[in-house]
Amino acid sequence: MAHTLAQKILQAHTDEAITAAGQIVRCRVSLALANDITAPLAIKSFRAMGAKKVFDRDKVALVMDHFTPQKDIASAQQVKLTREFAREMGVTHYYEGGDCGVEHALLPELGLVGPGDVVVGADSHTCTYGGLGAFATGFGSTDVAGAMALGETWFKVPPTIRATFTGTLPKWVGAKDLILRLIGEIGVDGALYRALEFDGAAIEALSVEGRMTIANMAIEAGGKAGLFAADAKTLAYTAARGRKDAPLSADPGATYERELTFDVSGMEPLVACPHLPENVKPVGEVRGVTLDQVVIGSCTNGRISDMREAAEVLKGRKVAKGVRCIVLPATPGVWKEALKEGLIETFMESGCIVGPATCGPCLGGHMGILADGERAIATTNRNFRGRMGSLESEVYLASPAVAAASAVAGIIAHPGSL
Amino acid sequence: MAHTLAQKILQAHTDEAITAAGQIVRCRVSLALANDITAPLAIKSFRAMGAKKVFDRDKVALVMDHFTPQKDIASAQQVKLTREFAREMGVTHYYEGGDCGVEHALLPELGLVGPGDVVVGADSHTCTYGGLGAFATGFGSTDVAGAMALGETWFKVPPTIRATFTGTLPKWVGAKDLILRLIGEIGVDGALYRALEFDGAAIEALSVEGRMTIANMAIEAGGKAGLFAADAKTLAYTAARGRKDAPLSADPGATYERELTFDVSGMEPLVACPHLPENVKPVGEVRGVTLDQVVIGSCTNGRISDMREAAEVLKGRKVAKGVRCIVLPATPGVWKEALKEGLIETFMESGCIVGPATCGPCLGGHMGILADGERAIATTNRNFRGRMGSLESEVYLASPAVAAASAVAGIIAHPGSL
Repeated sequence: MAHTLAQKILQAHTDEAITAAGQIVRCRVSLALANDITAPLAIKSFRAMGAKKVFDRDKVALVMDHFTPQKDIASAQQVKLTREFAREMGVTHYYEGGDCGVEHALLPELGLVGPGDVVVGADSHTCTYGGLGAFATGFGSTDVAGAMALGETWFKVPPTIRATFTGTLPKWVGAKDLILRLIGEIGVDGALYRALEFDGAAIEALSVEGRMTIANMAIEAGGKAGLFAADAKTLAYTAARGRKDAPLSADPGATYERELTFDVSGMEPLVACPHLPENVKPVGEVRGVTLDQVVIGSCTNGRISDMREAAEVLKGRKVAKGVRCIVLPATPGVWKEALKEGLIETFMESGCIVGPATCGPCLGGHMGILADGERAIATTNRNFRGRMGSLESEVYLASPAVAAASAVAGIIAHPGSL
Repeated sequence: MAHTLAQKILQAHTDEAITAAGQIVRCRVSLALANDITAPLAIKSFRAMGAKKVFDRDKVALVMDHFTPQKDIASAQQVKLTREFAREMGVTHYYEGGDCGVEHALLPELGLVGPGDVVVGADSHTCTYGGLGAFATGFGSTDVAGAMALGETWFKVPPTIRATFTGTLPKWVGAKDLILRLIGEIGVDGALYRALEFDGAAIEALSVEGRMTIANMAIEAGGKAGLFAADAKTLAYTAARGRKDAPLSADPGATYERELTFDVSGMEPLVACPHLPENVKPVGEVRGVTLDQVVIGSCTNGRISDMREAAEVLKGRKVAKGVRCIVLPATPGVWKEALKEGLIETFMESGCIVGPATCGPCLGGHMGILADGERAIATTNRNFRGRMGSLESEVYLASPAVAAASAVAGIIAHPGSL
């Protein structure tokens, strides 16, 4: 059987022959992941199932990123419990404090995930690693506990939806806009338990970081995973991080459940309006919406290319009076590179608040929570009601360029309009 | 009557003749201050007393610094309420977001407080401005509400304790050590409702920032205020911030309730051990205490001279494995200057977590809260049980140099011992 990218990766991790979507297979996992919210739950399940040690101390990652630096006593206790478990098990990849960053930005940066891997994580945005050609997916904490103990798990082989992006991206239109366009088209359940496979000239032209932005939001269409072929760019990215990977792509003649094609030429930047990522409109249609807060960061758009994009807009400009613009580089590595390139200086001179690497306000965690009636635009991935604070607040999702332009304008704005 | 510094300032703000300590006088206030914790309470009292407007829109400061960037919905609501009050009243000095810093570092930096001022603030560390020669003191929110409405308040004129520091400070011994020495000597209630007045060769040699560090902790000895004469250094500091001030010192022959003299020559850096600022020991006596966290910042030691002192120790060194070293420059101005001088780079290269200007973990607010059994050393001002998190955690207080050295050593350490 000719396999889609998702099927091909699962096939390489199972001894059973994958012959059709819907089949249930047992797979070996390359890495099992949990964070400061989910690890304590996974550890509880791990103990409850009588597990004594993790299947491979080098293939478990525990990243204390959501409430770091610890927001309150409860989150400090969560980290403490996880730290002690990591020590007990000898887990190599335990991250907290100055070594820590947002998990889905950190693990690719450290070379811990790459093409052909099967990664399961107790975090819904684990799908990010699909940008590198991994089959990566979010699990409940209990299932991650099983994977941590056994080194394997089961999957129902997903059907694949192919999304082809053709044409050339206009200035100020990028990866975030492409994934918003797809979600706007198919809806937040449009890829339910499907793998999404992205290709086309516009995808080939994207940076690996841009592809991770897209893969990151596969879950916002309900996708089980979002995958990209591993091409020369991917291999250069992972080689620079100490890995030796081979090119990887779907088999010719693989069967796709659905195929969608989008021409990106002439596209406008897009914005997802409250309260769903599928409420997508061209920025021109929401121009003028007033803002209290702007958030630039997260596992979706907190990488160095995102920082550069935001800084390009903010350079020499000021954040509008009355707007809080919070910039959170996603890892210490991104932070230091942004410092070196003068981007941190640009943010500070513009009047931004620069914080440490943390998930922070994205999930309503801390460092930028909204009050009743407040409105934010964010480079994050979800704008569900109450996601960033009060149930009476609103979140718009956009690219770093649109978020930065909106910070300057004080209203949602096109970066080309400043 | 010959007046002490405190009495002399109060005298200039009242129409009644001050003839003795203990006398009750009505005084005009130069500035009334509240923050994101206390302003909502003050506003409630302000409304309850039927006040319709603030006495002077330029003489009220509202600084949203404790939980910024907003930690949770409750703190976001507090800020929102205060913001709306500030707009309604036309308050000039309302600070939040990118303009905001830790109040007691921000107001001096902006030139809003200076020699001879009477400043009342709904925050116990309002006494910081005594470093500039102001009579500044912490009030309850209700009393600040009265001052905001009326522009005046009443005081019982405090007796004054004079603390004279002679000799020359050794390398790695500074302002923080001097105030810890005094508190260690007289105890946390040693200056209860007294003004502290600092002088001597070692005080004259201190920077204005160092004097603010000392004045900041007057309250930790129970002091109503802690004051320094305004000398040429003070006037240069305030002139650079747009003020025109005159020299100010106590009258010759003023009566002091108590006079203490300390020779600083040969002093060791000091550390206040859990759980009181009076539990002061030379660093050598606590060397080896293991640490989970280090905090460098706060209204006590978050100024540029503190950042320089910490960076001098951290330069070319690494924070010990397993220790979180959180650096919080106290204002955007300090942050930008630290960036310009390469200090932020030093902190990041050392493995510190650099956060935005916020009170943060000092008061157990956010951004570095301790779990059960965790131990921190901090440049902050209080180490009461549970101050930085769990009731089962511990906080040691020290200078930026000792805190930085301890971050590198992973244990409490003398900066000269690295």
